[in-house]
Amino acid sequence: MRSSSSLHQQGERVIDRCREIAAFTEVPGEITRTFLSPPMRGVHELVREWMESAGMSVRIDAVGNIRGLYPCLKPDGPRLLIGSHLDTVPNAGAFDGVLGVVLGIAVVEQLHGRRLPFAIEVIGLSEEEGIRFSKPFISSFALAGKLDAELLAHVDANGISISDAIKSFGFRIEDLPGAGLAPETFAYLEVHIEQGPVLDSESLSLAVVDAIVAQSRFELTFTGQANHAGTTPMHLRHDALGAASEWVVAVEEYAKSHAGLVATVGRVTVVPGAGNVVAGQVTASLDVRHSDEGICGAGVSELLQAASSAAERRGVRVVSRPLLEQASVPMDSRLTSLLHGAAERAGHPARRMCSGAGHDAMILAPYVPSAMLFLRSPGGLSHHPDETVLPEDVDAALSTAMEFLCLLRDDRSTLKDDHA
Amino acid sequence: MRSSSSLHQQGERVIDRCREIAAFTEVPGEITRTFLSPPMRGVHELVREWMESAGMSVRIDAVGNIRGLYPCLKPDGPRLLIGSHLDTVPNAGAFDGVLGVVLGIAVVEQLHGRRLPFAIEVIGLSEEEGIRFSKPFISSFALAGKLDAELLAHVDANGISISDAIKSFGFRIEDLPGAGLAPETFAYLEVHIEQGPVLDSESLSLAVVDAIVAQSRFELTFTGQANHAGTTPMHLRHDALGAASEWVVAVEEYAKSHAGLVATVGRVTVVPGAGNVVAGQVTASLDVRHSDEGICGAGVSELLQAASSAAERRGVRVVSRPLLEQASVPMDSRLTSLLHGAAERAGHPARRMCSGAGHDAMILAPYVPSAMLFLRSPGGLSHHPDETVLPEDVDAALSTAMEFLCLLRDDRSTLKDDHA
Repeated sequence: MRSSSSLHQQGERVIDRCREIAAFTEVPGEITRTFLSPPMRGVHELVREWMESAGMSVRIDAVGNIRGLYPCLKPDGPRLLIGSHLDTVPNAGAFDGVLGVVLGIAVVEQLHGRRLPFAIEVIGLSEEEGIRFSKPFISSFALAGKLDAELLAHVDANGISISDAIKSFGFRIEDLPGAGLAPETFAYLEVHIEQGPVLDSESLSLAVVDAIVAQSRFELTFTGQANHAGTTPMHLRHDALGAASEWVVAVEEYAKSHAGLVATVGRVTVVPGAGNVVAGQVTASLDVRHSDEGICGAGVSELLQAASSAAERRGVRVVSRPLLEQASVPMDSRLTSLLHGAAERAGHPARRMCSGAGHDAMILAPYVPSAMLFLRSPGGLSHHPDETVLPEDVDAALSTAMEFLCLLRDDRSTLKDDHA
Repeated sequence: MRSSSSLHQQGERVIDRCREIAAFTEVPGEITRTFLSPPMRGVHELVREWMESAGMSVRIDAVGNIRGLYPCLKPDGPRLLIGSHLDTVPNAGAFDGVLGVVLGIAVVEQLHGRRLPFAIEVIGLSEEEGIRFSKPFISSFALAGKLDAELLAHVDANGISISDAIKSFGFRIEDLPGAGLAPETFAYLEVHIEQGPVLDSESLSLAVVDAIVAQSRFELTFTGQANHAGTTPMHLRHDALGAASEWVVAVEEYAKSHAGLVATVGRVTVVPGAGNVVAGQVTASLDVRHSDEGICGAGVSELLQAASSAAERRGVRVVSRPLLEQASVPMDSRLTSLLHGAAERAGHPARRMCSGAGHDAMILAPYVPSAMLFLRSPGGLSHHPDETVLPEDVDAALSTAMEFLCLLRDDRSTLKDDHA
């Protein structure tokens, strides 16, 4: 299935298409495209055109996902799902999500009409970022059959519910079951930009994702005593910011000394927050992630203990409040091995890594064996207008995806139920 | 001049009077009384009544200071100025400033009409806190003849200048020179609450102030790189909050290990300030104070260097901007010794200390020999509705002030120009 000459410079074409999609925006001059916003209609038209030209039959499901089906020889044969999301954060780049959809179409194009023993469904999901409804993964939940009444009742800033948004875009709630994963789907492949600096720092094009990390978020409140900065000697202070700062350094040091762990204090607010008043209260965020829930949990315990120690030393009280506790989600190990082998065969040996960010594959993995391929993010930039990808990396990802099809085709366990 | 029985329980009476003044407020339910605000008229009426009953002739000068003169035997004889300020911060306590005025009146009352070889002028200054015009010490500047055109042009939040405020209260700008210190003034005594926890922590009533400390204020900006908290490994971060936090701890440690130095980071703002984003930029305040300018300055240098080191370790940049550089202001050594002796004679041995906060005496000291007496602030509280003083401490301060009059009377150098 490799066709080295035709793959050459497909990267540029994929990038151009991502930029074409970027022109559909709610905010002129930037890229902002939220769930079921008007510009999504233009994206659908464009994507439909590309999908149909590649030989796919196209439909838009009741949650606004565009789905192109490239059939196999056997009707209702096994189906490989390839895709990602088409919505964006405010003032986004052109590649987060979109690249995975456009690359899925390019994969089908590269087949030039040849049939495989499995069908390919390319999907452009309508919602992943969680911007409009402060709830991410709406589309993936619909695929998983988990877009239930409670989730449908969520409202946006204008008081419009997800249910209302679906209806006013022209869909019917009773059609939502039709947005579910086709039962014959045997695998999901998501190609996505890394959104981090690891590949760039190691001059690598690709990574295969082992797991989406476990994540814990807390809010800590340090309460000391606000006091006059001039008249309160050091030994009589109960400085909430001193305690919080010692702890921030401890968080950083702990994470640095535990491989694969990231721990972040990204928000600190100080009350009263005047230069001449010793801080009376500090509220701080804690975000800890690791692919191993046990290591993540041990880190959290240790860091909450460090907060207590830093506070105690200053006669400061600290309380912590859990905000999020998310288990790690492993990708399918067989698919992940195949994907790793595919990259190798394509001549672009891939690093293995964990994803520190959530993706649609995290939601879908419990329902369908899933694998993810990351592309280098130059400068580690994402969620930013300057977010980009390198054409050669897109070529590498496309070659890898084509090799992945070969390996899937040749792997007896892939089609065990339908084919032999 | 000591009259122990009559002094007994004068403390309660002084406190009651301070609370009477507290009823005059711009904001019902709290104590808020800024420069030339309407409630200041009620305060003037009350203070005038007390001053006149004590045998003083009363005037209100063109900047709104109320001044009661208790004459001496000789017209135009030397004059001791006793007082403090009558304005408050928003939602203040009843004693900051006010106590020094009411206690000045009590001193004159205790004379029961007896004449001294010097006159006593009790002054209630109209402005010290800097609230309305974001410029403190307006009244003291008027006494020093430094309320110049530039200062008069300063506007409040409503665009009203100091000059306009003076005129609309019913005064005339051309009368401002009459608000100056009388040339025969030979000493200024200010009694004030400590506004800090030192006396309370040592179970002492009184302190004599050696100097108002030197003070430096800076703003530091740490600029790193905002990054995804999940996808950016620790070793590839440029965490502005990590750098700032290490520095906050260094500031605290440095101050703790240098006697008499206080250093405070009271304000920290983090950008973007989201729990799942590594901090890109942190702005932080630095406030360093010591009675010795050299030690204060060395501390500042050391701490700015510590900021650079903490930043450099993380690939973060830091710039600092000086906001305030204030020299230390020593109190008059002879008066300070007399005051210390007076406390001893009154049976209330006083600690010597430096004032970490600014006071009117700081502005007046270059123009008239000045001394300050601090009273214990229970709990170290000030600028707070719960700010208080103990009746026995007010008794002690009043006894000390009476002994101070004796010592001044007996000290040959006091009246050397006019008397012998």
